[in-house]
Amino acid sequence: MNKKLKVGIIGAGRIGKVHTTSITNYMPHVEIKAISDVNFKAAEETAKNFGIPCVYEDHKKILSDPEIEAVLICSSTETHSPISIEAALAGKHIFCEKPIDHDLEKIKEVLEVVKKAKVKYQVGFNRRFDHNFKAIKSAVDQGKIGDVHIVKITSRDPEAPPIEYVESSGGIFLDMTIHDFDMARYLTGSEVTEVFAVGNCLVNPEIGQAGDVDTAIITLKFANGALAVIDNSRRAEYGYDQRAEVFGSKGSVAVLNDTLSSAVISTKEGIISEKPLYFFLERYMNSFVDEMSQFVAAIINDTEPPVNAEDGLKAVLIGIAAKKSLAEGKPVKISEI
Amino acid sequence: MNKKLKVGIIGAGRIGKVHTTSITNYMPHVEIKAISDVNFKAAEETAKNFGIPCVYEDHKKILSDPEIEAVLICSSTETHSPISIEAALAGKHIFCEKPIDHDLEKIKEVLEVVKKAKVKYQVGFNRRFDHNFKAIKSAVDQGKIGDVHIVKITSRDPEAPPIEYVESSGGIFLDMTIHDFDMARYLTGSEVTEVFAVGNCLVNPEIGQAGDVDTAIITLKFANGALAVIDNSRRAEYGYDQRAEVFGSKGSVAVLNDTLSSAVISTKEGIISEKPLYFFLERYMNSFVDEMSQFVAAIINDTEPPVNAEDGLKAVLIGIAAKKSLAEGKPVKISEI
Amino acid sequence: MNKKLKVGIIGAGRIGKVHTTSITNYMPHVEIKAISDVNFKAAEETAKNFGIPCVYEDHKKILSDPEIEAVLICSSTETHSPISIEAALAGKHIFCEKPIDHDLEKIKEVLEVVKKAKVKYQVGFNRRFDHNFKAIKSAVDQGKIGDVHIVKITSRDPEAPPIEYVESSGGIFLDMTIHDFDMARYLTGSEVTEVFAVGNCLVNPEIGQAGDVDTAIITLKFANGALAVIDNSRRAEYGYDQRAEVFGSKGSVAVLNDTLSSAVISTKEGIISEKPLYFFLERYMNSFVDEMSQFVAAIINDTEPPVNAEDGLKAVLIGIAAKKSLAEGKPVKISEI
Amino acid sequence: MNKKLKVGIIGAGRIGKVHTTSITNYMPHVEIKAISDVNFKAAEETAKNFGIPCVYEDHKKILSDPEIEAVLICSSTETHSPISIEAALAGKHIFCEKPIDHDLEKIKEVLEVVKKAKVKYQVGFNRRFDHNFKAIKSAVDQGKIGDVHIVKITSRDPEAPPIEYVESSGGIFLDMTIHDFDMARYLTGSEVTEVFAVGNCLVNPEIGQAGDVDTAIITLKFANGALAVIDNSRRAEYGYDQRAEVFGSKGSVAVLNDTLSSAVISTKEGIISEKPLYFFLERYMNSFVDEMSQFVAAIINDTEPPVNAEDGLKAVLIGIAAKKSLAEGKPVKISEI
Repeated sequence: MNKKLKVGIIGAGRIGKVHTTSITNYMPHVEIKAISDVNFKAAEETAKNFGIPCVYEDHKKILSDPEIEAVLICSSTETHSPISIEAALAGKHIFCEKPIDHDLEKIKEVLEVVKKAKVKYQVGFNRRFDHNFKAIKSAVDQGKIGDVHIVKITSRDPEAPPIEYVESSGGIFLDMTIHDFDMARYLTGSEVTEVFAVGNCLVNPEIGQAGDVDTAIITLKFANGALAVIDNSRRAEYGYDQRAEVFGSKGSVAVLNDTLSSAVISTKEGIISEKPLYFFLERYMNSFVDEMSQFVAAIINDTEPPVNAEDGLKAVLIGIAAKKSLAEGKPVKISEI
Repeated sequence: MNKKLKVGIIGAGRIGKVHTTSITNYMPHVEIKAISDVNFKAAEETAKNFGIPCVYEDHKKILSDPEIEAVLICSSTETHSPISIEAALAGKHIFCEKPIDHDLEKIKEVLEVVKKAKVKYQVGFNRRFDHNFKAIKSAVDQGKIGDVHIVKITSRDPEAPPIEYVESSGGIFLDMTIHDFDMARYLTGSEVTEVFAVGNCLVNPEIGQAGDVDTAIITLKFANGALAVIDNSRRAEYGYDQRAEVFGSKGSVAVLNDTLSSAVISTKEGIISEKPLYFFLERYMNSFVDEMSQFVAAIINDTEPPVNAEDGLKAVLIGIAAKKSLAEGKPVKISEI
Repeated sequence: MNKKLKVGIIGAGRIGKVHTTSITNYMPHVEIKAISDVNFKAAEETAKNFGIPCVYEDHKKILSDPEIEAVLICSSTETHSPISIEAALAGKHIFCEKPIDHDLEKIKEVLEVVKKAKVKYQVGFNRRFDHNFKAIKSAVDQGKIGDVHIVKITSRDPEAPPIEYVESSGGIFLDMTIHDFDMARYLTGSEVTEVFAVGNCLVNPEIGQAGDVDTAIITLKFANGALAVIDNSRRAEYGYDQRAEVFGSKGSVAVLNDTLSSAVISTKEGIISEKPLYFFLERYMNSFVDEMSQFVAAIINDTEPPVNAEDGLKAVLIGIAAKKSLAEGKPVKISEI
Repeated sequence: MNKKLKVGIIGAGRIGKVHTTSITNYMPHVEIKAISDVNFKAAEETAKNFGIPCVYEDHKKILSDPEIEAVLICSSTETHSPISIEAALAGKHIFCEKPIDHDLEKIKEVLEVVKKAKVKYQVGFNRRFDHNFKAIKSAVDQGKIGDVHIVKITSRDPEAPPIEYVESSGGIFLDMTIHDFDMARYLTGSEVTEVFAVGNCLVNPEIGQAGDVDTAIITLKFANGALAVIDNSRRAEYGYDQRAEVFGSKGSVAVLNDTLSSAVISTKEGIISEKPLYFFLERYMNSFVDEMSQFVAAIINDTEPPVNAEDGLKAVLIGIAAKKSLAEGKPVKISEI
């Protein structure tokens, strides 16, 4: 590997910096040649901190650099699909943050263009690369729990996002549960056929005024007969709650939250252990590194990326079905969408 | 308390013996004066083992004994409601195993007769008296987790019952989930307004042929805005899985399974701890004793029993709604039933 | 088993009542015919509560009752050995609380008399019958952890006893650690050859003034090469801490404390689980029942009791060696005592 | 921080590579200018992998480079003290792997030279920087458990080292337990006054033939009255066992092992969780990074390093006392050494 793989990063926000850090620290064979952000100052600062040579306001400058082989789309959600298309047409391999789009038609267009352009396309479902979820998946794949009967996913945020964010987020199912939908597909190894969602606004009434719910339970039926249930809350006072269990014909496998240490303090007040790691940056840092390594490996080895555009589409499909189910108060078949 | 409370036990099967044992070992102020069973030999044997003076084939002989103040109805399900009515008319206080009946009208009739007869009526939802579930309830009642948002109940049996049993059981929702429905009401302190059930036959195809499912997820909506989800399986290879979690505005409280010991064996093979206590007799023995003590206390102190006929009715109502939901593939409002 | 085994209880204090309760609730084939206490009122009250027909101030009246086959010596420590001898000479089977005596010569005399009288003699090392310690022992005996290399026992009381008690207790090693010495012998299945004790008075200076320590670490060497360490404190603020671990050539087995429930409350303050069961009555109740059942079984089946007078002697021997080691600041060989 | 801190690494073995990796990945403000190893090829390979410009066989070339401000001594144990002295005389700041030497006089000489040269000197007791041990220390320092009464450290390796290593290791106490001695000092915040060690050869008879033990329990007395116990084994079949507990006047704090994931698999065979991370490279990687960051920070900010030469001396002192105690079969006062 004499020549370094040159990449460009589009979007210098929180998640853009996460990937910049991963590549800088762990991927000596990758060079971040350029970074862009509509907020030029943000891009400039990150470039300075990480020694990135080229900084742009306009991501098109990255796309037109022939040395750059791959781009990471870390810009705001509504730009994901148009930039995906531009990048594919420019012949770049693409890592795109989730969701590809809120609009199914636009995602399908991305899929088509990507397919024709024969570029790699990976979607940022980072949780698949988390040590705990990999351990569940591995136990399932090794047949340790037999056929999958029931999947349970608990996914609760430590605090609700600002109302402005909620308003443009596409709703809890497309913003938050989308990770869980992907996880349910990943763990069952099967496709969702029907979705039923109940939800309520119990955390913050403003979320309800913004037309969304903050507490939800979603039931999924799968083609292989498995059933799944996801429960979400926008605010768990004790922190980011990310657990899952797969139950099958031979037993079950479950994972708990991660903590900073295993310290248990025993006093008059009780036996006290640590709260979960605060939020996704703390909890999932290892997974961000791993997903990026595997994206890079897929390019270098010319293999299929581990999470592709199709996966990105499927999760949005389920999210839209969940939204419809909540609105209509009845189960919705994926085939209806 | 000079005079002992005299009781009669109707039904000398498994659960009849459980209550006989509890009273004999822990309630010196209660005397089991009579026991009856349509299988006279079974009644005779239990009578001999526990020193019960009167043994009958016909439970009516118990009801006509003026010394007997209370009866325990531990006979087969279809006899629960008729014997309840007879016993109430005979002026006996009644402890009745769940469910009171599969037929709502018959339960309502029991309620009416019991009300008129002014006798105590307790239904055998023993799990409310279990140390773990009491601990959850206590944390909720003390406001430790704030307002209830989400209740999650896992309830899986160690092995499926015989097919003959399945056929007459009223289906998984009335036979097995009924305990979980009661628990969900108990933990939320609110009434169910809507039920949605999905289910499948994944454990044993014969259960499907008998018209039932063996794997199910049931979502409940409550009047106070809380949501609940129950997952059931007729067979968990690792044993009787009885866990619950209540999540609220200030945090959550969860309970795990009980084991015979806390022993953890660490070897090359891994870190191995004990499987759950085998089944309900092992797991819930303490709760059977406690529910009986409280029934006795309600009679002696002339107070309302902790689980009454209304509770018995409500759980069946939810069970019937779940059955309908599964059959029709859509959520069912309790008000529709 | 037509005829009931008749027993007499000598001492109506806390532990006397524990055994009275166990026999009454769980051993229908045993009849407590008599109870005695130097405090006659105490004996009378217990007799009334449990329906014991004969009550005495003088235990000799129990010993002279030919119908009584076995006695439970639950009186104060200094009376254990003289009453043991009287009872053996009277041909009664004996269950004696620990320690048999603080004086080795007196214990040896008991052993001799018991041997000649051919009566059963069981010492009250109840922890051997606890569900957790039985699970460790069972794992060791089944070879799951291979040869025993290291035994670790943590034994801490929830609060220090009154100073008057400390003064007459024989010191921490004969009063408290004696249970742990027996446990170490039981778990290794080998005999102690050398003892080294360090101790300090860190909990309550009055204990130091009474000539004792309240915090100690005792190291034991065993004939089979195994090593053991016991740590004691007279006061653990979080409650009765009773854990053990056996480490061997193939792995380890460890047990934790018991709690009232498995409830875990997660809030802003942390993840909080329950403190250990308060003290020995709460923690070890199951073991008291089991040891008594096995004593009764040994009489009925004419087999050797599971913990005999020799075991009682050995534990005191180690305790005396520990006392000497602490006093002299050097290891003490058991053969020196 | 415009100018990078230039360092040289002496020794390109396993631990030399660990530090090289930490600096490369996490310390952009530090430049590894040179690396040396008596095995030149090893140095050359590491230099190539990490882009280190200067490679030497002779560490003196590093010491004579005026640009290099600090050196990391990662060479074999017997070279630690002579190179420490040379480096101090050359005016370099020094990070030295443990132990500084097996000979107390040589360590004292290092201390003197370092003091005169006014260079920073940090010893590689990495475990102080581990997330779990930091959590214990933090709880103790915050007074959460009150005054320290008892410290318990379990430290067991997953497999015994080769016999050749054992022979030159200085024995288990100077090679393996030395980390635990440092940890005990760190956690109590007090100095050891007396040591008593028992040990046996139970894992591998060849270790005994080499004059060492492979299983040991060491009791420590501290100046502040606290007591500590360490148990060691050269082989735990289930893996690297690194736990600790501090018990005090207000409660206790304990830490468990780290695992790759929190996955728990429940099947017929039992409830199985993961074994500890394999060995020190896996378990303590985070601590190696952190200790190096703090060494660098101490240089840049001109502050005292968190673990100094005095700490290095004290741990060896305790190790020598433990060795003497084991040989003589009696407790040894630190003041005797």
